[in-house]
Amino acid sequence: MAPKTVLIVYAHHSPTSFNAAAKDVAVQTLTARGCKVIVSDLYAMGFHAVATEADIKGKLKNPEHFLYAEETFTAYKEDRLSDDIKEEHLKVAQADLIIFQFPLYWFSYPAIVKGWMERVLTRGFAYTLQNTYDNGLCKDKKAVLSFTTGAPETKFQPDGINGDVNVLLWPLQNGVLHFCGFQVLAPQIFWGPAHASPSERKAMLEAWQARLNGLLEEQPLSFASSKLFDLSVQAGARLRPEVKETYASQPYGLTTGQHLGKPLPPNNQTKSPPNDKH
Amino acid sequence: MAPKTVLIVYAHHSPTSFNAAAKDVAVQTLTARGCKVIVSDLYAMGFHAVATEADIKGKLKNPEHFLYAEETFTAYKEDRLSDDIKEEHLKVAQADLIIFQFPLYWFSYPAIVKGWMERVLTRGFAYTLQNTYDNGLCKDKKAVLSFTTGAPETKFQPDGINGDVNVLLWPLQNGVLHFCGFQVLAPQIFWGPAHASPSERKAMLEAWQARLNGLLEEQPLSFASSKLFDLSVQAGARLRPEVKETYASQPYGLTTGQHLGKPLPPNNQTKSPPNDKH
Repeated sequence: MAPKTVLIVYAHHSPTSFNAAAKDVAVQTLTARGCKVIVSDLYAMGFHAVATEADIKGKLKNPEHFLYAEETFTAYKEDRLSDDIKEEHLKVAQADLIIFQFPLYWFSYPAIVKGWMERVLTRGFAYTLQNTYDNGLCKDKKAVLSFTTGAPETKFQPDGINGDVNVLLWPLQNGVLHFCGFQVLAPQIFWGPAHASPSERKAMLEAWQARLNGLLEEQPLSFASSKLFDLSVQAGARLRPEVKETYASQPYGLTTGQHLGKPLPPNNQTKSPPNDKH
Repeated sequence: MAPKTVLIVYAHHSPTSFNAAAKDVAVQTLTARGCKVIVSDLYAMGFHAVATEADIKGKLKNPEHFLYAEETFTAYKEDRLSDDIKEEHLKVAQADLIIFQFPLYWFSYPAIVKGWMERVLTRGFAYTLQNTYDNGLCKDKKAVLSFTTGAPETKFQPDGINGDVNVLLWPLQNGVLHFCGFQVLAPQIFWGPAHASPSERKAMLEAWQARLNGLLEEQPLSFASSKLFDLSVQAGARLRPEVKETYASQPYGLTTGQHLGKPLPPNNQTKSPPNDKH
């Protein structure tokens, strides 16, 4: 097998943090397995989190009515994006796998990671209007969200006060990563390391190390295939009637259950992803 | 009734955008009703989206292991937060209602708004470990997400390719706003104004104007009350057994259904929020 390239998009301020340790374990383990590992250390890079006109070199197409996605699409095609975005594009283009390593901030990734998504997953580069979901331009790449929480796992169960962690991951995993075509691996969730003992933290890192050894060979989560939707303008990209009928009787509907309004799987969807067989 | 204060946290680059028009309609309508209206125009302000050490004046408590939430909690108590955060705190403190006006970017608010949440909803100011959800420090304030989409409404139905819009709003409405105690009003969603005709856009703004006239008197969405959870460390903030039993037979479980793994309401939860009666 040819050596693989892994990009780690890493977002923590402190080199003594658990997130830093998780990133370091990934670098060491994957390097030892012969992978080329690239790290984008967003805070250390002073990565710009905000999508602005400064991301485009030269003249805007429509300076009177600035629309970021439109302008960056044009700039991408004409090789007029800012250098920092182009550098990230080069890294993503090489990567077989992207690991996003961050602390959960306000039930999502930190703003600096959100900014990376907005600025780097450029239309034309990561998707086009015709190339989304199954056909997203990143469909040959894998991606995984690896993060720490402040709260314990119980709070993120379906009956926990914060609600099911899979619900908050849905817009990130399906809406951002799968939208661009990424094969999304089960999230790596480190529950409350700040409140854990040193030996518990060590065990968490060892479990991550063990997983990293087989990470590139893991099967991705399954999401509803684009083929199940009628993508015509008239139908408005809703599930085809015959699909609804077929899946209505299955325990979790379509994978996460989201698309048929079915319950989410009782535990982490990632432990036993239902197979959508298409 | 005493005059009310409304803060609009606004995030669009262009003054000719539909988002700008929606913000302007809110300023005009609420001002005409006697409200004091304050606008935080995040891009125009050059608002810093990234939470860093620069948010704290003076010495860090633990410079070797920088933890943003801990350090800003201390800095808040000691009046050592950066001036831009303090200015936003003053605005929030005055506000009876906050309107967040933005275009949906990657299934969420833009990074600059995420950064506002991270930097302004400071521990000690917006919540404490003891004051979350029903008891969040913003419990006397209302908040509403008002946003534009690129995609049509059909794509955000439960059977649409993007999935139910209520799912992607859950971490924002329950996880950020309700967590701080805000009474969350039904979202104002402008479906695909960029693809609408001028008369359709005009109608959208008129509907918003009509809603704004009664916005401050609207009943908030209902979320599961904190009282329904056993907040002891042993129980881990999960639903009380007797609560599960009571709600298990109700059509949508607890409000969005999230907490009992029940289906989401077939349409926008916001059109007919189920009443959780507690």
